[in-house]
Amino acid sequence: MNVHTPTQTSETLMANALRVLAMDAVQTANSGHPGAPMGLADVATVLFNRFLKIDPSDPSWPDRDRFVLSAGHASMLVYAIHHLLGYDDMDTGQLKAFRQLGARTAGHPEYGHAKGIETTTGPLGQGIATAVGMALAERMQNARFGDDLVDHFTYVLAGDGCLMEGISHEAIDMAGHLGLGRLIVFWDDNRITIDGPTNLSTSMDQTKRFEAAGWQVLSVDGHDAEAIARSIAAARTDTGRPTMIACRTVIGQGAPTMAGSHKVHGAPLGAEEIAAARNALAWTAPAFETPAPIREAWEDVAVRGAAARKSWETRKETHPLKQAFDSSLKAPDAGALAAAIATHKEKLSAEAPKLATRKASELALEVVGATLPNAVGGSADLTGSNNTWTSGMRAVSRKNYGGNYLHYGIREHGMAAAMNGIALHGGFFAYGGTFLAFADYCRPAIRLSALMGLPVAYVMTHDSIGLGEDGPTHQPVETLASLRAMPNLTVIRPADAVETAEAWEIAATSRTAPTVLCLSRQGLPTLRTDHTLENRTRRGAYLLKETDGDRHVTLIATGSEVEIALAAADLLAVNGIKAAIVSAPSFELFARQDPAYRAAVLGTAPRVGVEAAVRQGWVALIGADGAFVGMTGFGASAPASDLYEHFGITPAAVAAAAKALI
Amino acid sequence: MNVHTPTQTSETLMANALRVLAMDAVQTANSGHPGAPMGLADVATVLFNRFLKIDPSDPSWPDRDRFVLSAGHASMLVYAIHHLLGYDDMDTGQLKAFRQLGARTAGHPEYGHAKGIETTTGPLGQGIATAVGMALAERMQNARFGDDLVDHFTYVLAGDGCLMEGISHEAIDMAGHLGLGRLIVFWDDNRITIDGPTNLSTSMDQTKRFEAAGWQVLSVDGHDAEAIARSIAAARTDTGRPTMIACRTVIGQGAPTMAGSHKVHGAPLGAEEIAAARNALAWTAPAFETPAPIREAWEDVAVRGAAARKSWETRKETHPLKQAFDSSLKAPDAGALAAAIATHKEKLSAEAPKLATRKASELALEVVGATLPNAVGGSADLTGSNNTWTSGMRAVSRKNYGGNYLHYGIREHGMAAAMNGIALHGGFFAYGGTFLAFADYCRPAIRLSALMGLPVAYVMTHDSIGLGEDGPTHQPVETLASLRAMPNLTVIRPADAVETAEAWEIAATSRTAPTVLCLSRQGLPTLRTDHTLENRTRRGAYLLKETDGDRHVTLIATGSEVEIALAAADLLAVNGIKAAIVSAPSFELFARQDPAYRAAVLGTAPRVGVEAAVRQGWVALIGADGAFVGMTGFGASAPASDLYEHFGITPAAVAAAAKALI
Repeated sequence: MNVHTPTQTSETLMANALRVLAMDAVQTANSGHPGAPMGLADVATVLFNRFLKIDPSDPSWPDRDRFVLSAGHASMLVYAIHHLLGYDDMDTGQLKAFRQLGARTAGHPEYGHAKGIETTTGPLGQGIATAVGMALAERMQNARFGDDLVDHFTYVLAGDGCLMEGISHEAIDMAGHLGLGRLIVFWDDNRITIDGPTNLSTSMDQTKRFEAAGWQVLSVDGHDAEAIARSIAAARTDTGRPTMIACRTVIGQGAPTMAGSHKVHGAPLGAEEIAAARNALAWTAPAFETPAPIREAWEDVAVRGAAARKSWETRKETHPLKQAFDSSLKAPDAGALAAAIATHKEKLSAEAPKLATRKASELALEVVGATLPNAVGGSADLTGSNNTWTSGMRAVSRKNYGGNYLHYGIREHGMAAAMNGIALHGGFFAYGGTFLAFADYCRPAIRLSALMGLPVAYVMTHDSIGLGEDGPTHQPVETLASLRAMPNLTVIRPADAVETAEAWEIAATSRTAPTVLCLSRQGLPTLRTDHTLENRTRRGAYLLKETDGDRHVTLIATGSEVEIALAAADLLAVNGIKAAIVSAPSFELFARQDPAYRAAVLGTAPRVGVEAAVRQGWVALIGADGAFVGMTGFGASAPASDLYEHFGITPAAVAAAAKALI
Repeated sequence: MNVHTPTQTSETLMANALRVLAMDAVQTANSGHPGAPMGLADVATVLFNRFLKIDPSDPSWPDRDRFVLSAGHASMLVYAIHHLLGYDDMDTGQLKAFRQLGARTAGHPEYGHAKGIETTTGPLGQGIATAVGMALAERMQNARFGDDLVDHFTYVLAGDGCLMEGISHEAIDMAGHLGLGRLIVFWDDNRITIDGPTNLSTSMDQTKRFEAAGWQVLSVDGHDAEAIARSIAAARTDTGRPTMIACRTVIGQGAPTMAGSHKVHGAPLGAEEIAAARNALAWTAPAFETPAPIREAWEDVAVRGAAARKSWETRKETHPLKQAFDSSLKAPDAGALAAAIATHKEKLSAEAPKLATRKASELALEVVGATLPNAVGGSADLTGSNNTWTSGMRAVSRKNYGGNYLHYGIREHGMAAAMNGIALHGGFFAYGGTFLAFADYCRPAIRLSALMGLPVAYVMTHDSIGLGEDGPTHQPVETLASLRAMPNLTVIRPADAVETAEAWEIAATSRTAPTVLCLSRQGLPTLRTDHTLENRTRRGAYLLKETDGDRHVTLIATGSEVEIALAAADLLAVNGIKAAIVSAPSFELFARQDPAYRAAVLGTAPRVGVEAAVRQGWVALIGADGAFVGMTGFGASAPASDLYEHFGITPAAVAAAAKALI
């Protein structure tokens, strides 16, 4: 796309149109953040007007540039731009309904609410870290399909908050290391945070910091359009390094008395200041109206974008890789995967190996990877422990974007956000590993996976005190409950290699929810020795072992504790007590089953739950009168078998709990 | 204390003693991390032998230097040192029982397990961030009591993992900004992580990075004792800036064939390599035995430390601030606080203001602050929203360590870890604020507060969809459940200003557990208009409104939803249905009450729970047959009152749920 060089005057007016819409919408909502949109209006205008390659008539066109508003509280900036660009879902009514129930103009940009919102932002730092995944996906896709099909930039507007958050460190280190030259971050250097001037809390030399991470850094007056344009051009030219453009701006630029103060950050300016701002900007149009010449200038941007998109479509039509490219963006072939997993399960059931489920996960990933060539794996520096690397994988590096494995480093948070970015970009199925206890380190990004409904897969191994000697800091006890509490997240804790294979089928074919696989460190026997074509894990819970005649008790367990429940049933059998065994790998999936199925699985006999974790959440399965054998506090450092004895999670304890109930 | 200058030869032997103990203990345990202790042995020997001011016979002496092993997997390093220094709880038996059940020698250093362990480490980056709080507390205490009583350093051994984690960014920015010149961090630059060489995942120029944050950076051969000593001396001299000493080391130094490889990171060396290492080091003593001259050299360190401690005791005896100093380290005067809170409550009950509980929290903090002069507040850049600043507070800065308020910046994780460090250091009661939804951003540090039992207080405001327009990223729905799942954490969600005052009394007098206060953005009426001396919140749940005669239903609610439950009771009364109201500010405190009390509160009538959050955890209160009015998914962006209507958390909905039950 040719770069357009407008007169500065027209861009000033285009930017002022954004300022006025932002302050009017915030005032109408009586809530919101006018300061950042007003301060960033000039940067955004130059970026959109001269560089950004998007087509409002086809907002999800694959080769578009990605624009991420990491400073999500500046949402009115993007809504105002989309309105002026003519997005068909962003009419004046939406701006007037800013932050109101049912409007697309949510307080922070929400992925899926309005066209062209590339990711949900608001929790600070997530945008820049997600953008790293997008920029990485662009290069990985480019390595596979070439410049004619994949050739776009990822632009990020980030504030001081984004750069103070720890996740930004993980993100910029990763981007610098991977040489993501098409990632361009604008830092809104307005020297104001909510508490006051930034020098209340930071003395960071951001230029030096980004240079330390291998970035190009440019500095610019954020209200000088020509200087901004020169910086962006220079950033695009340096394709070997990501670029940070430090934009010195005045927060609330245009508000005559309040600009430059933290007072414009998070509250309406008030009628008086708005009137004064209109005066100062010589702006006579009524609220929510934009003079025709300015509207037309913005509409020109859309016209150019549509032309670029059409030219790309034309190139693609005759491209030899057209079919492969289109197919990489589609849902995986669920039928083929189901067949491959079924074959794999049959072999497992026949051979009945004793395997840690993390090892079983590796075996399942071999099957997934063979069927879904666009799977991209990785681990936060626990590759050998998470068993995330399968045969034939190659590491992604700045020299080889054609690889399919990411050494994410000791950066769980950056990994999870990058996985979100890869999923949002399209073209890949991303999974990444760490220890389950360190889910906490990436929880804010997992929450965004769930909120956006992104089908990424978290491989969380060492899922209990079964981790052993590393001790309580590394042993999850509350982590399962805390993940199950999160809406739209599928947590699966498989009991053996067969359930693990089924879990991977679920994770790899999910379209609207992320999956967390919770996997054991320790070896576990194959329990599903009778092969079934049906993916029983998809039911969430099922009768693993029925009784002859009526059951006296039902033992419900997950993961490594199903083996314990089975052993307890044997102990009970000695006393003539008939115990049915329910394996319950996923509470969320079970909750979705019809009541009749649920009732049949749970039965009417007393129930005992077994899980090496806290009880919270279990009452849904065992009822208020059920017994629970698990953890009540943190773990300890010792060999796994000693810990199970010490904390009383044993067949004998389960049998005793059952006897006490019946 | 005078700095001791030994011969290098003797220090090499002292270091080799650590290497041998580490490799033998890991081998005996058949699990653990020999590489880092062996690589860091020289740095640690020089530090302890020549500089560190500690007294093994009085390990918690207030003016000791703090030593933090941020690379917690190198735990055998500190156990070996303590053994050789003669800590009376670290005999050979403990080393032989490394990583075994009941031993003090846990896989990672656990605070409280063995003397001299200043903080629990293992989750990477926590140590360095906690140390920032310790170093800050030292300066704050120094500003109050002077050099004669407070004059110590905080030393940290950090690995690549610590510096890759995002929390390290927050920590080093904070330390540089606050000019913590007595914080000295050794970076174990061994260029190896679990996955392989560090250049698989990072290209960070750490020197430049730390300089960008305002640190002095020195580089040294980590096996050259004199060079290490010169660096430490230079670090101690620069009192205006924290210092990072980049120590180029070889992981597993001393292991002849495996040193320098990731194979020595996390597994025993094996008998053969250990024998070869003994040979190479000319080490003839049997496993777990240290030749007498080397033991004596280590014991000299302890002797010097004891002398330093005695000299400090002597100074303190005649110091004019002796009493104030001692008192600052003691438990708060619970009686005085109880009296002050009672007076405050009486006034609130009489005046019955309508207040957001975050505002009520500010009022309670005025009372707490007046009674506990060593309270140190702060917020992660949400001071005005968290209401954490009370009258007369002064900001802490590098120019004024005498202040008592911390602008933590947009760094929730760094804040929480620093609060842990302040609590561990002693002398202060630390509280800090953010939005409840951002508890996820600091969850790994909250987990360490709970695991260590540190009495810090988290002020988490905007605790539900009542936050309104900022939308789902800022609205906690699963956060309450996820925090309640964590062992040893007291979560309190008060319903009005009176409960908020009671909650603060609990938080400020806690000795062994952290507290999370979950506070509303929106105004709430005073419900406790009948003054009681008793702190009813301490019961966890209580009958706020009884019925005349037997109840037909019990409505149980927390926080802002108690008002809704009361309104529902009025609706039910119209139909002649008698509803008792239970306010349940803390599930954990209620769980600790005796069964008779619990049964009396819950009653035998059907129960309805009301909370603008997910149901998980509520069955403990409402039973399996109870109804629940709350959230089932993420929130939305709209004014709070619209959201409560939209999600059906209304008096009418509660009344309908009650009617359906009875």
